[in-house]
Amino acid sequence: MIETNTNPIPAEAMITGSQLLGRRSDAQSADGATPATDAEVATFQAIQPDTGTTFPELFHEASDDEIDRAMTLAAAAHPHFEQAGRHRRAALLEAIAQEIEDLGAPLLERASGETGLPLARLEGERGRTCGQLRLFAQVIRDGSYLDLRIDHADPERQPIPKPDLRTMQRALGPVVVFGASNFPLAFSVAGGDTASALAAGCPVVVKAHPHHPGTSEMVGRAILRAVRGLDLPEGTFSLVQGRGHQVGAALVQHPDTRAVGFTGSLTGGRALFDLANQRPNPIPVYAEMGSTNPVFLLPRQLASSAEDLASGLAASITLGAGQFCTNPGIVVFVSSSQADVLTRALTEHLQKLPSATMLHAGIRSGFEAGVAEAVNQPGVETLVRNENPGRCGVRPTLLGLSASTFLQQRVLHEEVFGPCTMLVACQDRDEMLAVAASLVGQLTATVHGTDQDLAATGELLEILTQRVGRLLFGGYPTSVEVTDAMVHGGPYPATTHSQSTSVGTAAIRRFTRPVCWQNAPASALPEVLRDDAPAGLRRLVDGTWTTS
Amino acid sequence: MIETNTNPIPAEAMITGSQLLGRRSDAQSADGATPATDAEVATFQAIQPDTGTTFPELFHEASDDEIDRAMTLAAAAHPHFEQAGRHRRAALLEAIAQEIEDLGAPLLERASGETGLPLARLEGERGRTCGQLRLFAQVIRDGSYLDLRIDHADPERQPIPKPDLRTMQRALGPVVVFGASNFPLAFSVAGGDTASALAAGCPVVVKAHPHHPGTSEMVGRAILRAVRGLDLPEGTFSLVQGRGHQVGAALVQHPDTRAVGFTGSLTGGRALFDLANQRPNPIPVYAEMGSTNPVFLLPRQLASSAEDLASGLAASITLGAGQFCTNPGIVVFVSSSQADVLTRALTEHLQKLPSATMLHAGIRSGFEAGVAEAVNQPGVETLVRNENPGRCGVRPTLLGLSASTFLQQRVLHEEVFGPCTMLVACQDRDEMLAVAASLVGQLTATVHGTDQDLAATGELLEILTQRVGRLLFGGYPTSVEVTDAMVHGGPYPATTHSQSTSVGTAAIRRFTRPVCWQNAPASALPEVLRDDAPAGLRRLVDGTWTTS
Repeated sequence: MIETNTNPIPAEAMITGSQLLGRRSDAQSADGATPATDAEVATFQAIQPDTGTTFPELFHEASDDEIDRAMTLAAAAHPHFEQAGRHRRAALLEAIAQEIEDLGAPLLERASGETGLPLARLEGERGRTCGQLRLFAQVIRDGSYLDLRIDHADPERQPIPKPDLRTMQRALGPVVVFGASNFPLAFSVAGGDTASALAAGCPVVVKAHPHHPGTSEMVGRAILRAVRGLDLPEGTFSLVQGRGHQVGAALVQHPDTRAVGFTGSLTGGRALFDLANQRPNPIPVYAEMGSTNPVFLLPRQLASSAEDLASGLAASITLGAGQFCTNPGIVVFVSSSQADVLTRALTEHLQKLPSATMLHAGIRSGFEAGVAEAVNQPGVETLVRNENPGRCGVRPTLLGLSASTFLQQRVLHEEVFGPCTMLVACQDRDEMLAVAASLVGQLTATVHGTDQDLAATGELLEILTQRVGRLLFGGYPTSVEVTDAMVHGGPYPATTHSQSTSVGTAAIRRFTRPVCWQNAPASALPEVLRDDAPAGLRRLVDGTWTTS
Repeated sequence: MIETNTNPIPAEAMITGSQLLGRRSDAQSADGATPATDAEVATFQAIQPDTGTTFPELFHEASDDEIDRAMTLAAAAHPHFEQAGRHRRAALLEAIAQEIEDLGAPLLERASGETGLPLARLEGERGRTCGQLRLFAQVIRDGSYLDLRIDHADPERQPIPKPDLRTMQRALGPVVVFGASNFPLAFSVAGGDTASALAAGCPVVVKAHPHHPGTSEMVGRAILRAVRGLDLPEGTFSLVQGRGHQVGAALVQHPDTRAVGFTGSLTGGRALFDLANQRPNPIPVYAEMGSTNPVFLLPRQLASSAEDLASGLAASITLGAGQFCTNPGIVVFVSSSQADVLTRALTEHLQKLPSATMLHAGIRSGFEAGVAEAVNQPGVETLVRNENPGRCGVRPTLLGLSASTFLQQRVLHEEVFGPCTMLVACQDRDEMLAVAASLVGQLTATVHGTDQDLAATGELLEILTQRVGRLLFGGYPTSVEVTDAMVHGGPYPATTHSQSTSVGTAAIRRFTRPVCWQNAPASALPEVLRDDAPAGLRRLVDGTWTTS
């Protein structure tokens, strides 16, 4: 049962292939929203990854004028959208969630058609997406993220009077969000970046991912209906389409852009990061670029549960056809007979698994190229590698190598996006520490160990802590909770900004900056900084956190 | 009375001109701390700005090996220094403050000799420096900056159990701090960047400013005595000397460097920012690069207090020979007879002021070049401009121009570092809004207005809020409090990182990043994240902020 309402809007009524520029786009007298008819405008079509069948709609590559219009509208909307206040923004986030749910099965079907992801997975992802929007509504109603700070004046202080200082977090301004291919709902048009940016008071311009443009337009129109329903400013949200790099580059370089959210490849994220830093006025790029998510199996745990570890790893490696940023790409252990048991069991599990469908042909060819490069390194043994059927089919690859091979060949430290995992066999504990110390920044690392194992390996934990955003004890990295304490981030190259998270309530901080009012009369202060602010706000007043 | 103890260590006993590499540098068997004797090592001397007299010591340009040693020691120290714990780090900050005070008058005399700043000013600056160190000791004892977040597990949750997640802020790693020339104590070796980085648990390598190298070495040795006294790791602190750009560039490019703190020019800050972003693994650069700090005089306030405003502005413009990042470089008003009164009065004040001494000849020549460029723009009237006496003497410059001239010539928007201020006369309120909207990012803006003025100008305040870190109502921007609510930051080009402050307790956030532990046994958790954590820590537990 994936239906959520009885009268959903059919997909074909929602998809025009045009840009959605400002909230009027969806109205009948859409300005600029009608599909361009100029034959010279570049167009592209959505493709079913398994069959290669194209969807009928022509998606139009956004022109420079359209990009400029999206950003100019966003810049004009910014002060008004922020001043609409936290409670109206919270209502917006909830309305977006409702509008997405109201799209019903056609959204999931379209998303499945464009990405090859199963409907059940997409239903779960929709739940997460809408839950995330509603969570950020709570976050901004609560107001703690405003980090309100008040230092009262002391006119008697010598040698000069102390001024009254009041500070809060304000919206950065227009945010460009890049939809990710691997989560067409939760990390795309209305995903975590959009939810946290809108929550912060930042207008959002989404660059739709070209491998689910129809899904993107459906969700984009749902957002616009919510914006219009709450009479929020024109320019609060826009969506532009584009297949090549030009549209994204132009958005990042536009003078009105104030920050960028991105989830995708290291190459893509670094390119946007470089463009943003080369601007006359640089802007932050919050790019989450994935990692190899090493899993360390400590001796006693491995001795007692090699079979369980093998089946758990097999499931995690192949979840979503291996297309998770937190996919475990490296498994590290000290050689032993139990390690051999694990290797055999994991090999058997992965050999047996049926093929899955990858998101698009480009990801499949990237996967195959990555596997081929790894396999060709001296010292790398191929344990599982089967033909990847059809256009986008994929079967898992398992490689085995020694720690010394891993330490010598840096290419083996690079992520192969998809279901490819390397078993790295160490001679001893010291070599395991050397492997850990050789790792670049990671979203996660996982340690499977008994209490005794852990007691013996404080050094490993410290090494890993310095390299990750999240350290797991047991379990597998491929689930990411949306909570206050989640960190989905990590040192470069996991992200371009290790001091932030792109999942969880703290993600809102990426899109705010502090502003301080000095000796302002109450009438010139934001309401939340006045002495008679609404009750319940958490504030740091003269050094003490209080809730008035 | 500037003496603080009766038996200060004489300056000449403290200054060797060598690098201070790790805490053993100051011990008798200093490794690498003895001045190099190789004739090929580049050396330089400190210079008295007013007379051009050189101090006797030869300061040695740090070699690549010395830079590498400083950073390698810092990287090795990082985990141990962080694990030394908040309470020992707090003790370190307090010990540093005490050691600096114990240097007594010789420190202030040396600083005055090297910078031309008066002893009384330096005494105040020392108070601020030591107060800042002690404030960060409080900040880390309090522990709120750790942003502790706990989401307890829910094993019953469907479809999958919810894990236990616990997050805290951890130290980023080795931080490179560039001493600033204009605050040889408060923004230099033991200034706000060093204090907040050490507080966060980051080892610090300071690049001493070449225009107060002796002051830097004295303070550096004071820090090392404190490090040694508390038996903190070798590499917790190092100081390197260098006159050119090479030393700084090598520090920013070193693979072990994790963040950079800088206060100085736009050119210098941008160069470091670019280097850091071009690294294989980019790192954040927190560069505070100054601004023009516009002051808006609204009609009713101007009508009632033109003379007071003139004398207040004159004092702020010339404070510290105009060498404050928050120096008011632009004063904006609507033309009126009272504006003419202000102009005449300010002209008279500035004409009368004696010359002051700038920090070094380079700053004086930069000031003169900036003034010459502004004066040569069509439409710029010179109201005050007198010969700048001697080697580093300076007298204030006052220029007058119309808003339309200001709007047309972007070069007039650039900061002229020193006592140079432009009076920008607008035809009406709309032109004043246009001037505000044309401004680039600023550390501060100041509005002088009566209640009636302010009620009539919400739009101006909103425009300014979007462009500044701090908005003052009355007063002058040239004082910066060190408190919880201070924001000394702002959009580019005021800083490279508008989401941070370089002054105040929130400055510690620049040097931390979040790390999350998932399903960790208590024994593997940092103490502050355990269920039985020390009392009094503020934590966000299952959505509610509590102090256990």
